[in-house]
Amino acid sequence: MALRRSWLDSANAPDCDFPLNNLPFGVFSVGDSDLRCGVAIGDRIVDATGLEAAGLLRADPQADVLDAPFWNDFMELGPAAWSRYRAALTAMLAEGADEALQDHIITHSVQMTRAALHMPFRVSEYTDFYSGRHHATNVGTMFRGAENALPPNWLHIPIGYNGRASSVVVSGTPVTRPHGQIKGQDDAAPRFAPSARFDIELEIGAIVGQASDGLISVAQAFDNIFGYVVLNDWSARDIQAWEYQPLGPFQAKATATTISPWIVTAEALVPFRTSTPARETPLLDYLTEPGPMLYDITLEVGLTPEQGTETVITRTNYAEMYYSAAQQLAHHTSSGCPMRVGDLLGSGTISGPEKHNRGSLLELSWGGTEPLTLDSGGTRSFVEDGDTLTLRGHAQGDGYRVGFGACTGTVLPARR
Amino acid sequence: MALRRSWLDSANAPDCDFPLNNLPFGVFSVGDSDLRCGVAIGDRIVDATGLEAAGLLRADPQADVLDAPFWNDFMELGPAAWSRYRAALTAMLAEGADEALQDHIITHSVQMTRAALHMPFRVSEYTDFYSGRHHATNVGTMFRGAENALPPNWLHIPIGYNGRASSVVVSGTPVTRPHGQIKGQDDAAPRFAPSARFDIELEIGAIVGQASDGLISVAQAFDNIFGYVVLNDWSARDIQAWEYQPLGPFQAKATATTISPWIVTAEALVPFRTSTPARETPLLDYLTEPGPMLYDITLEVGLTPEQGTETVITRTNYAEMYYSAAQQLAHHTSSGCPMRVGDLLGSGTISGPEKHNRGSLLELSWGGTEPLTLDSGGTRSFVEDGDTLTLRGHAQGDGYRVGFGACTGTVLPARR
Repeated sequence: MALRRSWLDSANAPDCDFPLNNLPFGVFSVGDSDLRCGVAIGDRIVDATGLEAAGLLRADPQADVLDAPFWNDFMELGPAAWSRYRAALTAMLAEGADEALQDHIITHSVQMTRAALHMPFRVSEYTDFYSGRHHATNVGTMFRGAENALPPNWLHIPIGYNGRASSVVVSGTPVTRPHGQIKGQDDAAPRFAPSARFDIELEIGAIVGQASDGLISVAQAFDNIFGYVVLNDWSARDIQAWEYQPLGPFQAKATATTISPWIVTAEALVPFRTSTPARETPLLDYLTEPGPMLYDITLEVGLTPEQGTETVITRTNYAEMYYSAAQQLAHHTSSGCPMRVGDLLGSGTISGPEKHNRGSLLELSWGGTEPLTLDSGGTRSFVEDGDTLTLRGHAQGDGYRVGFGACTGTVLPARR
Repeated sequence: MALRRSWLDSANAPDCDFPLNNLPFGVFSVGDSDLRCGVAIGDRIVDATGLEAAGLLRADPQADVLDAPFWNDFMELGPAAWSRYRAALTAMLAEGADEALQDHIITHSVQMTRAALHMPFRVSEYTDFYSGRHHATNVGTMFRGAENALPPNWLHIPIGYNGRASSVVVSGTPVTRPHGQIKGQDDAAPRFAPSARFDIELEIGAIVGQASDGLISVAQAFDNIFGYVVLNDWSARDIQAWEYQPLGPFQAKATATTISPWIVTAEALVPFRTSTPARETPLLDYLTEPGPMLYDITLEVGLTPEQGTETVITRTNYAEMYYSAAQQLAHHTSSGCPMRVGDLLGSGTISGPEKHNRGSLLELSWGGTEPLTLDSGGTRSFVEDGDTLTLRGHAQGDGYRVGFGACTGTVLPARR
């Protein structure tokens, strides 16, 4: 698919994250104003709350759904309404749109640089998966040796655990280095101390846009996913190593999970669908994909020290996943677990086959034994205080891109 | 402490769960009426929503907090308001209260037998701990042998994992036997089938009544807990065995968690405070209890087959826990994890030292090798379709008890 041209010139630049083909959903404020729902186009944010209140663009003719600062009520309306809304907004923003309409849009929009961005939706619950084969193999090799790298269930189940929704924050929120129980292999007892192995995990988050009760098919799960964000699942490796047996990660993953501020809709990603890899071990029927349900999304991570310039420390692609978000969601419902609008599913760390494709510092520095060299000098095994981590993603079209905006966080020193 | 006498005779019976000393908070409806907040007293439910609307008893002079069918907004007001409200209601219900007041209460109350009970609060997030030493030892012995029964971190950390809030249901809700991936030790591959080892876990749930951001002390955590419920963490042991490594239980615990319908306040339990056991291994400072923060609560489980009478299959006590809910909550905040009003913390399965004190069928039948004999005939290793499981708890005072009401669930056959 080619670029859809907008009358807003900034949306037509080939390296713009937010062309007319994208129209991602976020929440913004300007100065001390109230938080409002917005849609990104070029270098502007369309005030969707304002358009609704003015009667110029309504998702639901009966009720306001954008009068609260999150997109959950809009999601409740379902896929047909999502699609209609997007089509109507596309028509208003497309080259050749009525000039009076253009004036309305300009009135009900702001320069992106003037706006602060907030959480685009209320997270109901947060689940983090472990569906990157290169990541699971790398971590398994470090922890259990190459022979036992992949757990026996891994090729059968999209392994996941429940995370902590209250810790999900929007890009730009500072992250305080956590304390926790830490015990070195040779220590007699644990101590309570700041994490010395604080790390990132590069992931894509899928947002559940329709509730379900009982097992749903992979096809239904795919339709229930509203959109996607780039996600950084901050992880304290030293806390994790001591706590995670036998019931899994807990406080090591509860400090913060940062998401990019714009929900890129599943509809905007249609041209970039791709298939999960061929299986050497067949999947059970309830996990079989009826079509391509993964996406070709280019990803990278930049690390910027407090004093210094950015080094891109990894480049990878969402297409590396072994399980799609649709498969993860179908599995999530397999026990009868009710899912709700606003549930967030982390893909698991997205590592590629090569060293420079790895999605965490644990892997990039091989457990701290092979520190990375930064472009501005110095090395990194794990994140240091003052470092800013920036995760970026986009799907590349023909002369345009569908971008996610930056997912960024600066690490502050541990308290006291 | 002795019984506080009420002018409502049914509240003064020594075996009544809901004397004036208790006053637990729930949500009820009568017929097709709206859901309302209520307080249990004797054989009646006081309509707290109605008392607030009539201006007869207000928790907050400025705003209605009981006009929605959950106690979360009330919890937001904080411990001083909780205490004031309870004192005012106690005065209205105490022997000798003004007769006009008594008339108001009768007008704004219903017979408990006429009411349906609903979820008493909105669960923000659900965390399940593993803090029963006998339980952890029993399960560890079955899975890893007696030598390695207790994981190395267990005496240092209140081990827990995040559960699934959307699956928490109120007593009386039927529970459908889950499907899941199951793989026997000798099977070449897993299959997708109904769980054949569906089980209960007898627990106490603590309800967080105040939000926090960053590490809080055990003393603060204790003050932040609004109240307690009896909790059944339904568990599919066969699904759990195959899925739980390396990231912990997931779908095995996502079918349902049943709670008793009445929130017994921390204040009502003050006379029953007791200490966690002496430690052979000292705890880190952030987990040290400044006083008795556990409770003496007698617990039992009855199993009633579809055709047959109830067998009490276990009797135990909350005082068996190694970690209190206050210690669990303090640990939960240690990484900086934000906690919110309505967070629910399961204690972990409460098993006592003897076989007949065990809090799960897995333990009672020792992994299915020693089936229980039921009073009405037949045996049980795990829960069968049509079985009703009833968990009960009360704190025993001098001539009265503070009871939780039944936490019950009937298991329906797997779908299709």
